[in-house]
Amino acid sequence: MTHQGFTLWLTGMSGAGKSTLAERITDRLRAAGAKVELLDGDVVRTHLSKGLGFSKEDRDINIRRIGFVCELLTRNGVIAVVAAISPYRAVREEVRERIGRFVEVYMHCPVEVLAERDVKGLYKKALAGEISQFTGVTDPYEPPVRPEVAVDSGVDSVESGEERVWQFLKREGLIRE
Amino acid sequence: MTHQGFTLWLTGMSGAGKSTLAERITDRLRAAGAKVELLDGDVVRTHLSKGLGFSKEDRDINIRRIGFVCELLTRNGVIAVVAAISPYRAVREEVRERIGRFVEVYMHCPVEVLAERDVKGLYKKALAGEISQFTGVTDPYEPPVRPEVAVDSGVDSVESGEERVWQFLKREGLIRE
Repeated sequence: MTHQGFTLWLTGMSGAGKSTLAERITDRLRAAGAKVELLDGDVVRTHLSKGLGFSKEDRDINIRRIGFVCELLTRNGVIAVVAAISPYRAVREEVRERIGRFVEVYMHCPVEVLAERDVKGLYKKALAGEISQFTGVTDPYEPPVRPEVAVDSGVDSVESGEERVWQFLKREGLIRE
Repeated sequence: MTHQGFTLWLTGMSGAGKSTLAERITDRLRAAGAKVELLDGDVVRTHLSKGLGFSKEDRDINIRRIGFVCELLTRNGVIAVVAAISPYRAVREEVRERIGRFVEVYMHCPVEVLAERDVKGLYKKALAGEISQFTGVTDPYEPPVRPEVAVDSGVDSVESGEERVWQFLKREGLIRE
């Protein structure tokens, strides 16, 4: 497989399936011989953003740092896959502008479904007021207006989400099998 | 020119000529067709480490963040050139271990010479006690024990420093002309 450098940016609320989809795509790209790096929000926080909190300002700084790394990777021919809540539209647009080849994947899932699943038990706590600044409950999430790919993880299977992203990348010529 | 991914890490006190040499090497590598990124300490502070101070702890965090980015670039075949005071030996060794293909360039210059040149007027202030935590004056600098290349910018010209680094990279097979 040949490919260009680009950034695949998965945004969405906690539990919407960003990490799972990001890992699958990363594995598939790597198996096909691509140069690819996965920057998962939780992991990146320890490497780039330890000490930052969850205020809008700190969240924006976190996203800019991830964006800076993506920019370096992308312009050197590497695929950067990001899974990060990244709730604010303006800073997502800002990193999109900087990076250039940028594919935004909106992992949508109704908050009721997320709260019902509640894999990490966070929604229950957030709804009970035990977690402040929890995206989608006590903190805003601004959905993308025109994401390149939208996946509704309340309806779509992981496989179909992965396939949709993969076909988009092929159609745009970002990857060539 | 063909090359491997590696990290070229310039360490030394403020004014020792790290940025100048790093820029020259980066330009030469880029002109030869290499994939190369320059991470200059001052620039990187705005992108990765805004808010960090100059305590040992904060300096170490800064170096680890730069090291993390270098690791991603290096393992994807990109040359990362770093110019950062990076005064503490232990964290330099830590990033060396993580990165693997790591070339340490020690930019040495006696503090008397630096204070005499004092391009940015910082040594005068530091010696007058107006800047706390100034490396080499009121804060430690731990020189590398076995740097791959050592340049004494009090004696060597910029050209000879550049040539010494270039020849080292060729000899090690990191670049092939």
